[in-house]
Amino acid sequence: MAGPDSEKTACVLIIGNEILSGRVQDRNLTYIAERLNDYGVRLREARVIPDREDAIIDTINECRQAFDYVLTTGGIGPTHDDITAECVAKAFGVALEINEEAAEAMGARSGDAKRNAARLRMARIPVGGTLIKNAISAAPGFQMENVFVMAGVPSVAHAMVDALGSRLTGGTPVSSRGIVAHVSEGAVAASLTAIQERFPDTDIGSYPFYRSGRFGTTLVVRSTDSERIDAAVEEIKSMIREMGAEPEEEMEAV
Amino acid sequence: MAGPDSEKTACVLIIGNEILSGRVQDRNLTYIAERLNDYGVRLREARVIPDREDAIIDTINECRQAFDYVLTTGGIGPTHDDITAECVAKAFGVALEINEEAAEAMGARSGDAKRNAARLRMARIPVGGTLIKNAISAAPGFQMENVFVMAGVPSVAHAMVDALGSRLTGGTPVSSRGIVAHVSEGAVAASLTAIQERFPDTDIGSYPFYRSGRFGTTLVVRSTDSERIDAAVEEIKSMIREMGAEPEEEMEAV
Repeated sequence: MAGPDSEKTACVLIIGNEILSGRVQDRNLTYIAERLNDYGVRLREARVIPDREDAIIDTINECRQAFDYVLTTGGIGPTHDDITAECVAKAFGVALEINEEAAEAMGARSGDAKRNAARLRMARIPVGGTLIKNAISAAPGFQMENVFVMAGVPSVAHAMVDALGSRLTGGTPVSSRGIVAHVSEGAVAASLTAIQERFPDTDIGSYPFYRSGRFGTTLVVRSTDSERIDAAVEEIKSMIREMGAEPEEEMEAV
Repeated sequence: MAGPDSEKTACVLIIGNEILSGRVQDRNLTYIAERLNDYGVRLREARVIPDREDAIIDTINECRQAFDYVLTTGGIGPTHDDITAECVAKAFGVALEINEEAAEAMGARSGDAKRNAARLRMARIPVGGTLIKNAISAAPGFQMENVFVMAGVPSVAHAMVDALGSRLTGGTPVSSRGIVAHVSEGAVAASLTAIQERFPDTDIGSYPFYRSGRFGTTLVVRSTDSERIDAAVEEIKSMIREMGAEPEEEMEAV
């Protein structure tokens, strides 16, 4: 489904060697994707990139041109491998400076010197950036033009994307309905193509599964127009019943 | 850690609207990452892209130039939204033809006509491609030069990447050890930087966590040289003990 020109697009950059090594499973993308949809913004791409300066700078510069919004997760902690803020500053060609509001929020102006050094590292924000509130652990993220830089720790990343609402201008959120049936993808393929052709203003996806010893298919209809979704779903249900199976409404999406 | 020139790199492309909508959590990347490491191949990037022809063709053509290997998951089923094989053929400028070996494997030459049409759709392989065995559900993946096209269903994707071993030429696998301690990232930051500087042939990562009501940090040392890993880990353990905490060896990675 090609969107209107007024549609706002986004790309998520997941920054972290630990994801690329397979050590850690990303737990932010599905959450961010759902929130972007609530904001009416279309997530068009996500990339997982390493904690390497050249990779981060090049990817940010490519993506901030190609998409309306870029959201990053990871690499804004206090240790040597946290280089995201520095790389964003370089990508924009500005200095990275201690932001007094951030330093204040982290209590980096009182307490022992060693901890303060680490806190001040996290208070460095590219010149021109504005803070993104961290409701969980104080160290803020920041926005630099259309790039939103957030933490990698899931609870913090989720709180930060929750805080973005008013900064993202989107269009109509996409709604969806899923229908589950114990039919094979191969058996529905031809009829489903015909339904998709009759509903070009919807996106119909087909996802095979194997659960509790049985094969089946989940058919998902997505659109900004819920009446069109309902009409397409009725045709899908009829198709399934004609095959002698029983369509079931999918529970809340995973 | 900059690798030697002989190092082989890979990029994974996760193809599917269902991942970008947040409906489905990807379950293939960590598995593929670990297997690539077993093969001695460095996973340098992963991208999640939609089931859109322009996005798939452009991304495949960019990545097959930039990386030694490209592995894709998703979009090779029998329905209208499965367009990966077609896009790979277009990216390479070759025709997409029914592969007799694949058709045979799927039993698409016997049985009813409707099912056979769907099976034959899955038997279409770009001219010049070689099949990747599917030990789970028959429909094969395929290799086209340095691009490996696999299914999205996790059990099938995993079986396919398991089958790739002899086709991927890599170097020395990267080993790692993780140390867990109830210390804050901020408290270890300065000493950890010094250790990283003394061990430039290792990659030391620092990952904060919050579990069972306590904050802590996991420190991971990665290298192709396990003796250097052990030496760096000893220094990290000493650092933690000096802070009055007890370092623990991390259990099997997530």
